[in-house]
Amino acid sequence: MRNHDVVIVGASAAGLTAALTARRHYPDKSIAVIRKEQVVPIPCGIPYAFGVVGSPDKNLIPADDLLAKNEIESFVGEVTAVDRDSGEVVTALGDRFGYDRLVLATGSEPMVPPIPGIDKGNVFAIRKDVPYLNEIVSALDKAKQLCIVGCGFIGVEIAEECRRRRPDLGISIVEMLRHCLQLVYDEEFSLKAEQVLQEQGIALLLDETVTSFLGDHDVEGIELDSGRQADADVVILGIGAVPNVALAKEAQLEIGPTGGISVNRYMQTSAPRIFACGDCSEKVSFFDGSPSALKLASIATMEARVAGANLFHTSRVNVGVIGIYSTVLGDCAFAAAGLTQTQAEAKGYDVVVGTSEAVNRHPACMPGAAQLTVKLLFEAGSQILIGGQVTGAKSGGELINAISACIQRRMTADDIATFQTGTHPALTASPVSYQLVNAAEVAIQNMKRLVHT
Amino acid sequence: MRNHDVVIVGASAAGLTAALTARRHYPDKSIAVIRKEQVVPIPCGIPYAFGVVGSPDKNLIPADDLLAKNEIESFVGEVTAVDRDSGEVVTALGDRFGYDRLVLATGSEPMVPPIPGIDKGNVFAIRKDVPYLNEIVSALDKAKQLCIVGCGFIGVEIAEECRRRRPDLGISIVEMLRHCLQLVYDEEFSLKAEQVLQEQGIALLLDETVTSFLGDHDVEGIELDSGRQADADVVILGIGAVPNVALAKEAQLEIGPTGGISVNRYMQTSAPRIFACGDCSEKVSFFDGSPSALKLASIATMEARVAGANLFHTSRVNVGVIGIYSTVLGDCAFAAAGLTQTQAEAKGYDVVVGTSEAVNRHPACMPGAAQLTVKLLFEAGSQILIGGQVTGAKSGGELINAISACIQRRMTADDIATFQTGTHPALTASPVSYQLVNAAEVAIQNMKRLVHT
Repeated sequence: MRNHDVVIVGASAAGLTAALTARRHYPDKSIAVIRKEQVVPIPCGIPYAFGVVGSPDKNLIPADDLLAKNEIESFVGEVTAVDRDSGEVVTALGDRFGYDRLVLATGSEPMVPPIPGIDKGNVFAIRKDVPYLNEIVSALDKAKQLCIVGCGFIGVEIAEECRRRRPDLGISIVEMLRHCLQLVYDEEFSLKAEQVLQEQGIALLLDETVTSFLGDHDVEGIELDSGRQADADVVILGIGAVPNVALAKEAQLEIGPTGGISVNRYMQTSAPRIFACGDCSEKVSFFDGSPSALKLASIATMEARVAGANLFHTSRVNVGVIGIYSTVLGDCAFAAAGLTQTQAEAKGYDVVVGTSEAVNRHPACMPGAAQLTVKLLFEAGSQILIGGQVTGAKSGGELINAISACIQRRMTADDIATFQTGTHPALTASPVSYQLVNAAEVAIQNMKRLVHT
Repeated sequence: MRNHDVVIVGASAAGLTAALTARRHYPDKSIAVIRKEQVVPIPCGIPYAFGVVGSPDKNLIPADDLLAKNEIESFVGEVTAVDRDSGEVVTALGDRFGYDRLVLATGSEPMVPPIPGIDKGNVFAIRKDVPYLNEIVSALDKAKQLCIVGCGFIGVEIAEECRRRRPDLGISIVEMLRHCLQLVYDEEFSLKAEQVLQEQGIALLLDETVTSFLGDHDVEGIELDSGRQADADVVILGIGAVPNVALAKEAQLEIGPTGGISVNRYMQTSAPRIFACGDCSEKVSFFDGSPSALKLASIATMEARVAGANLFHTSRVNVGVIGIYSTVLGDCAFAAAGLTQTQAEAKGYDVVVGTSEAVNRHPACMPGAAQLTVKLLFEAGSQILIGGQVTGAKSGGELINAISACIQRRMTADDIATFQTGTHPALTASPVSYQLVNAAEVAIQNMKRLVHT
């Protein structure tokens, strides 16, 4: 048996960040990370492994390097049990690791709904497992018609990367909601994303549910609830993930309302010496503390930074999660933070929006010029920012983080309208037309109209 | 005589933004803008007019369009007097415009120090005047050896753009401080900028002062206080600007300690119905309220948004100015916000820094990958962020605005370390190695070391 001050189970975004944070905050403690797989894929990079990156083998978290450099011991093994009384974890091979503090970062598993035929050959979920991802690549390289189920981020990114890999491949996406990326964007942004996808010859079957997968041994097609059928010799499921809590349940830790491991705001589970973070842990919304099923690598790392710092004395609080997303479709960045208008209204907010569009250069003839649109959502009474959406130039990928800061610090429309920005001809819009500030100004005008009518 | 509810003098960044803001906040008021020149150059675009943009005639603020679209009247004329008793401004041609509220946005003039020979031919300052800028272009196109005096933003940007325009032109920059961009960056960032400039064959004469300009009618060279001489048949001065307060003085408005028009936090001058904003107005620091000589288009527009909203009822406060800068040298973005280490220490702050470098993509083999370095400066006791510097990938141009939000909302190192970000393989570093968050973590470790020793 080996003893460590800190044992961390999992080495993806949450486990790795928890280990690095623990090392930073507790330089004298011994730390061990135990992970199931020899190599760990970069979760957000998986779609790109099918396209521009070339192969799942090139999309790896450099975990060993990072851990060794920070004097963190690293073991490969599947942890199957926690002995809370003795303070030990046990692997499938019977190895035992003693801990003073334990961090569970066991991640999530792709959701695989009980649709008839889902067990047919060439129907894949997206597992964070390199050999399995290589199987998908082999199947894709032989395919004629790919059907992706789910038009969220994974779905649209995989569709584009498969188009890049195989210009001749037939590609369709089935989505049960009315629009692409509907949980993250308001309709006008979703429509733009749909257009970009369709221009690449990606067929969108929206407002449709798969009722069965057709074929003998291997999948040959899908049947939809509208009665339509479509060919498909490879199917990829991208419809969400469920927390991986088998180990936590074995250890009799409490499970929360969305199925994650219950944690308090310090990321402690119901056993105070055991912490959990990342996709496996239960979350609450930044906005109202209600249970949240959000699962994002950026949330996982935030939680890991809270957990890792709090292991031996609590110093950090998880203020609740905010969904912050970005992607690139075609040449166009799409990014979002916080609530969409639909989500905010469902929560009962009185929402006022402001939108501003401008070229991200000044003058507009500067090289690299592209339109950039910012939409901001405010709660009408307090005028506090609750959401933002960006589309256009790729600098939107960092602009969303300025918006994220504004949300997290509960800035009002007036705060943002008088926000001081760095602008430059070769990098951003002019300070006169800077989209973030002007969207706030537009929202203020819309609030005034609300008062006067 | 014409009467308007609001008269604005000047149509550059401050005047134009004040007009647009007034229109937004007071839809029923009549607004007029009076400007001296028919066409107004984009101030930050002037260096690029010499290079990539091709000509000063292509670097214009689309003022007429913007004003017309917002039902703001526009006049060309030089306002030479203010009759405060009757509430009128008077132009050089004797036209009179009555106002209820007046906004002075008269900008600044380039500093032209009394160095012997500064009046020789082909010695130019950077005036916001298109015909004058065209004269500089003509001189540059005939030049053999350009000498730029001042290694601030204008100096380095003009040097690069002249190199782009004329690969065969000899170019040198003289700077009295020890480093390029020293007022904005700490030494390690300045050294990197110097390297990028020198690689383009731009000679840097640092820690040197010009004692005289040599030649008969036209300049032929410069003499430095070290005794060195250098050839130069064109000289461009980029050594700062002084507020243009002639009109304000004529109107007997109070002038502040740095030579700008005195204003309160609502941007009202000593005459409450007269507002001032932009380079012509006096400023105080966001950090300690002390007088500040900062002059930036982004500050000018912020002040204009405060002034424009406050014209008929005060609703916004100027919280004081922060310097937020960005530029591109070579392929490398350089951006900064708030105080440098040197400035902070001079103000008496106990400064703790944290630096983090990572590739702005994940995995690192994604297209467009470039290093991006973030340095954050905190006040050691409160752990509040007081400055940040970014160099590397061009997404740094928007990342500095996330840092700017963190400064303006007085976020602590812990706030930033647990900051939720949007990350994406094609746009940013991974959430594990996201530079902004990790720089805060590094600073926290450095603070702890401070406590323990």
